[in-house]
Amino acid sequence: MQQFGVIGLSVMGKNLALNIKSHGFSVAAFSIDKPEVDAMQKYADDSLLPVYTWEDLVKNLEKPRKILVMIQAGKPVDLTLDKLSTLLEPGDIVIDGGNSNYHDTNRRVKAMKEKGIDFIGMGVSGGETGALNGPALMPGGDEAAYKRVQPIVEAIAAKTDDGRPCVSYIGPEGSGHYVKMVHNGIEYAIMQVLAEVYDLMRTVGHMDNKAMSQTFADWYHDKVDAYLVEISAKVLAQKDDLTDDDVIDHILNVASYKGTGNWMLEDGIVLGAPISMIAEAVIGRFMSKQTLRLGQAPVSDEKVPDNFVSNLQDALNLAQAVAYAQGFGQLHLAAEAYDWDLRYSAIAQNWEAGCIIRSGMLKQIEKAFDNAKAPVKTLFQTPEFAKQLKDELPALRKMVALGAQAGVPVPTLSAALTYLDSIFNPRLPQNLIQGQRDYFGAHTYLRNDREGVYHTEWYEEK
Amino acid sequence: MQQFGVIGLSVMGKNLALNIKSHGFSVAAFSIDKPEVDAMQKYADDSLLPVYTWEDLVKNLEKPRKILVMIQAGKPVDLTLDKLSTLLEPGDIVIDGGNSNYHDTNRRVKAMKEKGIDFIGMGVSGGETGALNGPALMPGGDEAAYKRVQPIVEAIAAKTDDGRPCVSYIGPEGSGHYVKMVHNGIEYAIMQVLAEVYDLMRTVGHMDNKAMSQTFADWYHDKVDAYLVEISAKVLAQKDDLTDDDVIDHILNVASYKGTGNWMLEDGIVLGAPISMIAEAVIGRFMSKQTLRLGQAPVSDEKVPDNFVSNLQDALNLAQAVAYAQGFGQLHLAAEAYDWDLRYSAIAQNWEAGCIIRSGMLKQIEKAFDNAKAPVKTLFQTPEFAKQLKDELPALRKMVALGAQAGVPVPTLSAALTYLDSIFNPRLPQNLIQGQRDYFGAHTYLRNDREGVYHTEWYEEK
Repeated sequence: MQQFGVIGLSVMGKNLALNIKSHGFSVAAFSIDKPEVDAMQKYADDSLLPVYTWEDLVKNLEKPRKILVMIQAGKPVDLTLDKLSTLLEPGDIVIDGGNSNYHDTNRRVKAMKEKGIDFIGMGVSGGETGALNGPALMPGGDEAAYKRVQPIVEAIAAKTDDGRPCVSYIGPEGSGHYVKMVHNGIEYAIMQVLAEVYDLMRTVGHMDNKAMSQTFADWYHDKVDAYLVEISAKVLAQKDDLTDDDVIDHILNVASYKGTGNWMLEDGIVLGAPISMIAEAVIGRFMSKQTLRLGQAPVSDEKVPDNFVSNLQDALNLAQAVAYAQGFGQLHLAAEAYDWDLRYSAIAQNWEAGCIIRSGMLKQIEKAFDNAKAPVKTLFQTPEFAKQLKDELPALRKMVALGAQAGVPVPTLSAALTYLDSIFNPRLPQNLIQGQRDYFGAHTYLRNDREGVYHTEWYEEK
Repeated sequence: MQQFGVIGLSVMGKNLALNIKSHGFSVAAFSIDKPEVDAMQKYADDSLLPVYTWEDLVKNLEKPRKILVMIQAGKPVDLTLDKLSTLLEPGDIVIDGGNSNYHDTNRRVKAMKEKGIDFIGMGVSGGETGALNGPALMPGGDEAAYKRVQPIVEAIAAKTDDGRPCVSYIGPEGSGHYVKMVHNGIEYAIMQVLAEVYDLMRTVGHMDNKAMSQTFADWYHDKVDAYLVEISAKVLAQKDDLTDDDVIDHILNVASYKGTGNWMLEDGIVLGAPISMIAEAVIGRFMSKQTLRLGQAPVSDEKVPDNFVSNLQDALNLAQAVAYAQGFGQLHLAAEAYDWDLRYSAIAQNWEAGCIIRSGMLKQIEKAFDNAKAPVKTLFQTPEFAKQLKDELPALRKMVALGAQAGVPVPTLSAALTYLDSIFNPRLPQNLIQGQRDYFGAHTYLRNDREGVYHTEWYEEK
């Protein structure tokens, strides 16, 4: 009998099955796609059993059964759960490791519980390499059920620098998939920031691909030790297979998306979360599809400003912090709205290795949450990030102004700056908006000097 | 027998009923709220009949009946339609003039049609004054049914400077409410721009309320002849009833919202519309609720820059054009996605008077659409707006850079600039994003020099 089942054997499912096997657990591996099962035969032994039917999967698993589903999100998951419901027994556990929408996971946790089956919605990040060697895992659902799969998921997860697993119980319902969705929104934001930094380097800094690659590599070993910075260096260093050029100069500049970043923005709108960097990153991808390409690319004849590269590094580092801060800010609002007890320092720890947004800064975030004595509405309330804000804000200001002047669009860098100039600001100008609303729609307003709801009889209103 | 029925007699329904009556049409006015009907008694005569029951409403209307529903959007509309369905006959027409979500209107048009009743979803803008004296109207649904109510809605609508009515048939299904939703998103954007301009004037320009009010009034009579500019001048000039100060200084700076701007953003995400100004305006309202107010308001000791006020006017004027452009851009994508034949110049005309976003610029937009020989993806493709872009872009650039340097958050001005620096840009930097996605997720990419889908075997990928 095998200890764990995996359904779905395309690259993520296959690599997770091999990861589980390599950590000493036995696996039964099933797919409705026969060639995928065939492809597993070369790994077959006592601890890896490829199976071709639902029934063979179920009857070859130890009870209570533990099954990881790694298939396309949406309808296929519901069909799989329908099928499994007819075969499983109370106490069995099904884990959905796909990029499911958290609304679906909320519904499935409830529906499966009614059948006595524990359903865990688990975000998985790290791509194919992560799946094989150690992904970041974000499981949500019933905590007692999580405890029963904990030894396996901790074994296969990525490990932080000091050896702790990048997995912990997130919370009830779809909270695991919610945290993965927020991870992906942050990922969109940081990727867009890097694209803007690249654009500033080539246009204002007159740097070639080699110099930009070297700069990203230097930053990775200096202040911004983020995976996405590391791979930016590598992408910019890569030669093209089809021409003599660098591949970056032949990749079409239209960004695709599967939509999990968009989902975060959609839920942010429901919650009233000020996630401007995520919004601008999502819209940056839209813009790359909509641009008419009829004009000139920006050209800068100016001499490269003093301390350009170091200011750019500081701006990037601070913008990355804002992206994390907006993500955790939305988690804070979601926890309140959906009544989830989220453990923010554990979530930061989950992201420290294995996942796409991993960086040294997440270790500082973990510590900042651990040290905080009151709820953290924004990371920049904590002494660690207040200091970073103070140190790096002048550089971010300069880079945003530079982008504006040079015609290089810097939407997420601007959004990061706007966030920082707003989040502690006692004098935002929305009093004018409330005045206008009361003027044209009698929508009333609150006052800053007394309680109550007010309406002004505006001169010439009639 | 009365020619028209109105259901719902709070301020909007009451004023529309009086508007209809004053244009020589007879009205039966009903509300489930008895005091609202009582309040109509003072206007009662041959052409205005207050009624207290559903049955009295229906039996006092000429056939085919024409009934305008002006009640709270959502569930109440469905309950009203359920009730009306039991009383009306095939050929009768029901118009929903509330701020209904267009998805609901799509559904209701279909459901009522199955009962033989024509349902028109009509956006209404102009607030209470507009309802009484002439609102902008955006009716969608069955065109033949629209033709039967056209004389009445044309009579009560606002009129453009040259006397044409601010109403025309928008298109099928919920397209009327869709256009109203886009109107409201544009409204959010322009209001946020004005708040930012106000913040720059007081902080960088060291202007007092009187000077700012005068400046907005001057601009209204100069280049930016928009209703929202006109009322900004008035809001800033208003004395407080409760203190010796100006009321603007006691209105709490937290912006509320009923959500139609948010809906536009939600649908923009579905369509892939680059509506960054609307996103930033929605998020600006969120931020005003989330800000911690622990810091300092921005202070500028710099001397006021040369041509500050005229540059600010140009920046405002151009940002207003971008807000309209993003709105029409989303309408263009919606028309394609939902298979609606939208008449853009008529929509511009509908907005030229009566509504909250009215301005002289809408006349230019109407003309630009009329003159266009090919589909307009962005207003700035047209010669009229290409010229404005060229003339005013340097001022917008300066104001965004100034905000960044002075610590005044200018999210929608920045978004307007980013849009203009992106929409014709042949060299946006999203090739780096596609390279990263292919690196960590094997998501593949397109090329700029040949057809097909490509994946690179990245060095050190494993």
